Amino acid sequence: MKTPFLGCAYYPEDWDDSQLDYDVKMMKEAGITCARIGEFAWRKMEPKRGQYEFGWLHRVVDALGEAGIAVVLGTPTATPPVWLGDAFPDVFVLQKDGTRAKHGGRRHCCSNNPHYLEASDQIVHAMGREFGKDPNVIGWQLDNEILTWGTGCTCEHCMKAYHDRLKREYGTVENLNARWNLNLFSQAYDRFDEVPGDWNAWHNPHLKYEWAAAHYDADIAFMHRQAEILRLYTDAPIGTDMMPTNAMGYEDMCGPLDVVMFNHYNTPANLSDAVFWFDYLRTLKDRPFWNTETATTWNGSTAIGQVLKPEGYCRVNSWLPVALGGESNMYWLWRQHWAGHELVHGSVLTPEGRPTHTFGEVRRTAEDFDKASVFIGGTKVKTPVALHFTNKAWQLFDQQKVFDGNWYAGDVQQVHRALVRCGVRPDVIGATHSLEGYKVLVSPCVMTLEDGDLAEKIRTFVENGGVWVAGPLTDVRNGIGAHYTDRAMGMLEDWLGVRLDYGVPTDGSVLRTAWEDGEDLAVRKWAELYTLGEGERLASVTGGHSALNGKSLISRHKVGKGEVILCGALMEDADLGKLMNLALADAGVETFRVMGSLNVSPRSGEAGDGLVLCEIGCGDAILQISRPMKDLLTGETFRDNVPVEPYGVRVLVNE
Amino acid sequence: MKTPFLGCAYYPEDWDDSQLDYDVKMMKEAGITCARIGEFAWRKMEPKRGQYEFGWLHRVVDALGEAGIAVVLGTPTATPPVWLGDAFPDVFVLQKDGTRAKHGGRRHCCSNNPHYLEASDQIVHAMGREFGKDPNVIGWQLDNEILTWGTGCTCEHCMKAYHDRLKREYGTVENLNARWNLNLFSQAYDRFDEVPGDWNAWHNPHLKYEWAAAHYDADIAFMHRQAEILRLYTDAPIGTDMMPTNAMGYEDMCGPLDVVMFNHYNTPANLSDAVFWFDYLRTLKDRPFWNTETATTWNGSTAIGQVLKPEGYCRVNSWLPVALGGESNMYWLWRQHWAGHELVHGSVLTPEGRPTHTFGEVRRTAEDFDKASVFIGGTKVKTPVALHFTNKAWQLFDQQKVFDGNWYAGDVQQVHRALVRCGVRPDVIGATHSLEGYKVLVSPCVMTLEDGDLAEKIRTFVENGGVWVAGPLTDVRNGIGAHYTDRAMGMLEDWLGVRLDYGVPTDGSVLRTAWEDGEDLAVRKWAELYTLGEGERLASVTGGHSALNGKSLISRHKVGKGEVILCGALMEDADLGKLMNLALADAGVETFRVMGSLNVSPRSGEAGDGLVLCEIGCGDAILQISRPMKDLLTGETFRDNVPVEPYGVRVLVNE
Amino acid sequence: MKTPFLGCAYYPEDWDDSQLDYDVKMMKEAGITCARIGEFAWRKMEPKRGQYEFGWLHRVVDALGEAGIAVVLGTPTATPPVWLGDAFPDVFVLQKDGTRAKHGGRRHCCSNNPHYLEASDQIVHAMGREFGKDPNVIGWQLDNEILTWGTGCTCEHCMKAYHDRLKREYGTVENLNARWNLNLFSQAYDRFDEVPGDWNAWHNPHLKYEWAAAHYDADIAFMHRQAEILRLYTDAPIGTDMMPTNAMGYEDMCGPLDVVMFNHYNTPANLSDAVFWFDYLRTLKDRPFWNTETATTWNGSTAIGQVLKPEGYCRVNSWLPVALGGESNMYWLWRQHWAGHELVHGSVLTPEGRPTHTFGEVRRTAEDFDKASVFIGGTKVKTPVALHFTNKAWQLFDQQKVFDGNWYAGDVQQVHRALVRCGVRPDVIGATHSLEGYKVLVSPCVMTLEDGDLAEKIRTFVENGGVWVAGPLTDVRNGIGAHYTDRAMGMLEDWLGVRLDYGVPTDGSVLRTAWEDGEDLAVRKWAELYTLGEGERLASVTGGHSALNGKSLISRHKVGKGEVILCGALMEDADLGKLMNLALADAGVETFRVMGSLNVSPRSGEAGDGLVLCEIGCGDAILQISRPMKDLLTGETFRDNVPVEPYGVRVLVNE
Repeated sequence: MKTPFLGCAYYPEDWDDSQLDYDVKMMKEAGITCARIGEFAWRKMEPKRGQYEFGWLHRVVDALGEAGIAVVLGTPTATPPVWLGDAFPDVFVLQKDGTRAKHGGRRHCCSNNPHYLEASDQIVHAMGREFGKDPNVIGWQLDNEILTWGTGCTCEHCMKAYHDRLKREYGTVENLNARWNLNLFSQAYDRFDEVPGDWNAWHNPHLKYEWAAAHYDADIAFMHRQAEILRLYTDAPIGTDMMPTNAMGYEDMCGPLDVVMFNHYNTPANLSDAVFWFDYLRTLKDRPFWNTETATTWNGSTAIGQVLKPEGYCRVNSWLPVALGGESNMYWLWRQHWAGHELVHGSVLTPEGRPTHTFGEVRRTAEDFDKASVFIGGTKVKTPVALHFTNKAWQLFDQQKVFDGNWYAGDVQQVHRALVRCGVRPDVIGATHSLEGYKVLVSPCVMTLEDGDLAEKIRTFVENGGVWVAGPLTDVRNGIGAHYTDRAMGMLEDWLGVRLDYGVPTDGSVLRTAWEDGEDLAVRKWAELYTLGEGERLASVTGGHSALNGKSLISRHKVGKGEVILCGALMEDADLGKLMNLALADAGVETFRVMGSLNVSPRSGEAGDGLVLCEIGCGDAILQISRPMKDLLTGETFRDNVPVEPYGVRVLVNE
Repeated sequence: MKTPFLGCAYYPEDWDDSQLDYDVKMMKEAGITCARIGEFAWRKMEPKRGQYEFGWLHRVVDALGEAGIAVVLGTPTATPPVWLGDAFPDVFVLQKDGTRAKHGGRRHCCSNNPHYLEASDQIVHAMGREFGKDPNVIGWQLDNEILTWGTGCTCEHCMKAYHDRLKREYGTVENLNARWNLNLFSQAYDRFDEVPGDWNAWHNPHLKYEWAAAHYDADIAFMHRQAEILRLYTDAPIGTDMMPTNAMGYEDMCGPLDVVMFNHYNTPANLSDAVFWFDYLRTLKDRPFWNTETATTWNGSTAIGQVLKPEGYCRVNSWLPVALGGESNMYWLWRQHWAGHELVHGSVLTPEGRPTHTFGEVRRTAEDFDKASVFIGGTKVKTPVALHFTNKAWQLFDQQKVFDGNWYAGDVQQVHRALVRCGVRPDVIGATHSLEGYKVLVSPCVMTLEDGDLAEKIRTFVENGGVWVAGPLTDVRNGIGAHYTDRAMGMLEDWLGVRLDYGVPTDGSVLRTAWEDGEDLAVRKWAELYTLGEGERLASVTGGHSALNGKSLISRHKVGKGEVILCGALMEDADLGKLMNLALADAGVETFRVMGSLNVSPRSGEAGDGLVLCEIGCGDAILQISRPMKDLLTGETFRDNVPVEPYGVRVLVNE
Repeated sequence: MKTPFLGCAYYPEDWDDSQLDYDVKMMKEAGITCARIGEFAWRKMEPKRGQYEFGWLHRVVDALGEAGIAVVLGTPTATPPVWLGDAFPDVFVLQKDGTRAKHGGRRHCCSNNPHYLEASDQIVHAMGREFGKDPNVIGWQLDNEILTWGTGCTCEHCMKAYHDRLKREYGTVENLNARWNLNLFSQAYDRFDEVPGDWNAWHNPHLKYEWAAAHYDADIAFMHRQAEILRLYTDAPIGTDMMPTNAMGYEDMCGPLDVVMFNHYNTPANLSDAVFWFDYLRTLKDRPFWNTETATTWNGSTAIGQVLKPEGYCRVNSWLPVALGGESNMYWLWRQHWAGHELVHGSVLTPEGRPTHTFGEVRRTAEDFDKASVFIGGTKVKTPVALHFTNKAWQLFDQQKVFDGNWYAGDVQQVHRALVRCGVRPDVIGATHSLEGYKVLVSPCVMTLEDGDLAEKIRTFVENGGVWVAGPLTDVRNGIGAHYTDRAMGMLEDWLGVRLDYGVPTDGSVLRTAWEDGEDLAVRKWAELYTLGEGERLASVTGGHSALNGKSLISRHKVGKGEVILCGALMEDADLGKLMNLALADAGVETFRVMGSLNVSPRSGEAGDGLVLCEIGCGDAILQISRPMKDLLTGETFRDNVPVEPYGVRVLVNE
């Protein structure tokens, strides 16, 4: 069993060669086992077009290898050298105001530009030839945080790709006109090439969706193209490191790649969001994901926007991806840049080569990983609970949010936190993910179910005995975000025999709402109100508006061997917890009993069964267990209550 | 007597023909008596240039007519079809950054562009020919919410129109230089065509004023041009629906048109602003105005920015325009769009054709209108109190506000609310409106009286016995917003024998101010301080700054048979109410005694005398009456106190 | 001894000639002794290119002279006449979006444009020829608030100047690449002319620094060029009036000029900032500075953003520059503009020629200046305490602030206020200023000491017995703002034998910090933590993070005959005061004992010794004195406690 990687981003090109030995020595001292290098060093690898210099990089890879530090190589396509823009100024993004981006910065080239693509191909070929078989290169990272700069390139290549996409998606312009309802505002087009991009007007939301999607297409295709080239030369896993946004789509991007890579810069205030993402990343591929970037201390891209984190944060933050299904945690960056950008970003070493104040936590994490390596390497996270988080819902809410402040990820993350507080570990899954093996599925704000075979999978899941919590704002639009015209919901009304009467923005100021047991229910921002047929009412409107009084808000419907809980409200945390507990109980899901902000990650596999505990609220926490367990990190044994200190980590295995 | 119209915007072009019968049936059920159609359907009427298709529209107009639902037809010039921009890209606004707007959205064409004007003429001719004599078309709406998109087109046609306007207004460039004081900053011009638009510099406020005015000119001329064409074909009334802003000028726009049309989307928090606008719209023409747009529930152009409104809001909001002098209330929109823009906007039906939760209030309003039709149709609102609200003041404050947060409409609306609380119904009037018949005239923030014959009319009004409350910030600038150089006020200093010593931004932190009766007076933001000659001091500075102590703040001056109350302060509500009561008492105006947020609309005419009561604060209210009155809506009779429920409406007539 | 000037900006070009006599009469009445004229009147002086008309200006200068009012003449280059832009459209700034600024407004020409420079030269020559020997012209002001409009002209001349600067500063592009660390992001250039300006990308901070510096260069060169021309014709002092920002650099600008000119518009809330600037301006040249602009009441460039100031503010605000080392206070403006821009700006007269409410305070100030003229004219401010405020630190923090909210001037001004509260008068000095004569030097946030001979001067200062308070954020970067790679501080670590372990953003939420005497120390935002060698620890981390506990925060180090107090923290006011008192005591500096917000300005010279007292907090204040002193303004004599009223001023001399 190999130990999870503890890694860091290393930029040897920024330093005098004489520093290499010192850096390697200090990495060893810190317990670093993996270095990410090369991602922005195009110029140093190819100082003139077609003239390659890889000697310096071989020296770095070899020195690291000799020290037992593995290497992840990055393709440097985010930052082309000045000779490319000199030769072809059109490689840069053409902005809405008609000006072009210029050399400097990063990610400002057009992913559809043939000159950029050709030059990118060549450097990727060259790197593949040079390092494809290097035994110390254990993975490849494509580009970095791919997302073309600004609000969308408007060059002729991008316009053509956009129009081609429209043709592909809609077939004929008449069909596009019809599906987008373009009689509205006399917007209808006679030819695809008349459709403008999303600029300088109050544009149709479907147009905005497709405009964004066309640019995401280009970025995704660019990554897949690089992967195909590298596969000519290497068997090491290939991925691309992405940020915590699902607009572009993790499933589309990662499908043809080998490993999911993820960069995050969460803080004490929103560490639970990182947990949410890890619960998602784990489900994207069988292979454990790689957490490729996080800060030891603080993000400082332009200035430090936070105060010092409490002791222990660095360690638990390093543990979380590994606890939750990844096989690496890597810091950005090893040694703070000495000049240029990001001069105050957190790091492992200062520019002068001294340890920063979290150095001890880094080293302790390395020791932890060693102690837990057999268990972590021989187990996987397993859970009967799934929570939906779809790329299409993200995009639809981006272009057509329903009410002010409605933010898809925030609403899903609230449900995620509620499930964690219930003492279960949710798998966060996309629309393409199988539902087999789950007992409970929760699908808030999945605006459309017209997303591949999603609707059919859910139907089967419920028929076969699953409990599905649906809503609010789920199944209310078709595949391009339009309303249905003959029903309010795509499949739920017919299936459950209910009628969605009204969707209303609300809080406690007008409507009164309550559970059937008489307890008040606190709606947050939005309520969908139903007339029920057969189902069992769980909550309803109890007063405030005579047209709405008595309407159902939450209901339970037996379907086949399973059930659907139809939920029409965004709710405050307490009510959301009540609903989640109810669904878990209906499904017979066992829950962990926890006190405090404890994340429990149940793992099992050839190395046995156990739990990784991570405290993320900087407070004391307790887990109740029912049989003796041993902490692999401290050697302690517990019989009933397991105390966890603020930001503490434990790896418990059955005694 | 015809019943006031209860109408809605209907977009049959967005729906399959098969929906028409259903929609008409549901309109009947809702009590809808009028539909606004056609306003954005240019492409459907003229799919290719010069090739007209009106069959579908005839079918809609006829089906509505057969059901007894009248039609208001809109010209679709806000949204030209794609073939226009394809043939003439210069129809789109040329923006400050040198780029042109593009097809999509609306109101992004240049009102000075000859190709746009020609194509607009042709579709208007075609519609006139086709529907000019249709008996079911009872009115015509020109364009929609006319106001060219963005911050002013900069094309050659607009620049020429702007320079032509300057020449027209100033005669010679030397005169322009002199009146704008262009020795300042060496700005003076040698030719009109050197004067730039308002972009890319810290520009002269007079230039900014003229730049905006030139664009308003173009939009106004465009509407008048359409009206002239339609008059070749129809006798039905013609108007254009405008929003609650007076920058462009309701008087200039509506003068040559037949009916004032108004769109508003007020909320519980600012419903009194809608009342203010209705009190203004009523005075623009003898013909009752049309409220062409309001929401049944919420505005949702991009997202819903409010919560559910309390029950009754929809009804009282529908009644207000009719109570206050209009003859229609129309909802935007009948049936929520199923795709494209504004997918979450409030409506009467959902996209799937179901009633929204305010459907019952809509129907009740229709029943109300029937019950009150004889009285409403045979009476008009009459009042002896007028409040000034001038287009020129709006424009001057737009370009040259005096202190931070100074907003002309807000300051006038505060006075309006004070008058309503005093139990009178103010006519809100523009500068061109006659003053005959009024006993009290209130003119706050009328920055200039050099506005047609305004000064002379006021003088006559006072000489003949009227009470005029003048100020603050009234008569302090000349017709282009410049200071006088030989006096501080245009006519008031000489006329009243006073001297305006100082205008100072202030609150209670430095100055102390009080009424002559000893009560404190709370100044809000601004005070003008006077040395009086003959007048009677009503309030003054009592301490805080030795240079200001003792200066007069409010004074009363007998002039001819009338009086002027010179008011130098923006005040908090209580003091403003005190001043209004004082003026009303001086003029011998009878007031209604009301408790609560009640709007009383006194109406009289061939159908007798009566009052329409509308509660707009969502609380209980009472009106005290001195003789028996009967509520036409409920049949109840009252002798002294008339209770009105939250958002309640009553139509009281003398028993 | 001449009386300090009490002056005003006067724009006779905006007024009918007939007003001149009246204005002069009123100036005499107000006590005005100096008028600033001409600064924007290019068009009136040169209505057509090369055709000069100075008759009107001679009449003004002469009329003022006859009345005993001196004149400061301004060159009008901020506002060229329309004929210049007509002939050469390229004189206007070329903006990032590719559009050019246009005629109107001011300061929108490119300081590198040859046509603009040529036309500017010619008008300056013409003015020099005409007025160079006029005995009533006692000074020349170049341009006005020089700073090219917007975010930097991008024209070919500016790009060339920028590239020339880079070549001058870095010699070779290889050196620039190396010093800017341009292997990072593959940014490195092959030629200087490839380096873009700071637009449209996430650019290197060193690039941003140089881009700004190149534009400041141009503005500075433009002023020096004008001065050289004027010196052909006049012996009167020449300066240029600048605002309270040190981005461009007062030292570089004023070095070759004769007199420092300063415009400020401070308010009661930030009057202490004006004091700070006066303490700085005084140290720039031997010649007393000129306060060229301040408001009698309020700034009203676009709207009035403040309320009336309390009585006395105008007088103390007028006194401050004179008390603190200047020889003039001038108001902007004499008479409010009657049309055009800035129509609500505070002034001495209203547009109609009436006194504003501060007229009495202006006149009283004039009387004060007369009474104190011998003392003020015969003394200078002298103090043993200096506070650093460097142009380079300002620029570096502009481009690379360390943490959110970090604002260089604000942090230095906090230290300045602390020193004032300690009862000393700090000289605020730039990097080029001599340290001779000082006992205490305080240097917060001097990011780099690589700034001329600054480091060496400080070293000598300390060796010779000075007390230097260094830090926080001092000496932590090299001359272009890059980190050192072999040490954390440029000279301090080696010199003092300390090690800067960590710089951390913090507040009281994580770390506990305390003085060695046990008192808590409240860190504000930032702490630098040290391991000490020999020094004496004054404050340290006492808890919160085991990696940081025990680290030194403030320490004292004996060096040569002097000492260094190394301070690693931004602190709350009380702790900052404690530190300043400690440093003053170590240096044996005598302090004034004051209660309240009193500024004490100790002055001495041939006219004796004395103190000018200015109360700036609008409260009562007391100064304790140890020997009898007499107030020259009131004739009162005091023996121990000198009371000062809110916004009061006293000029005390030894009895």
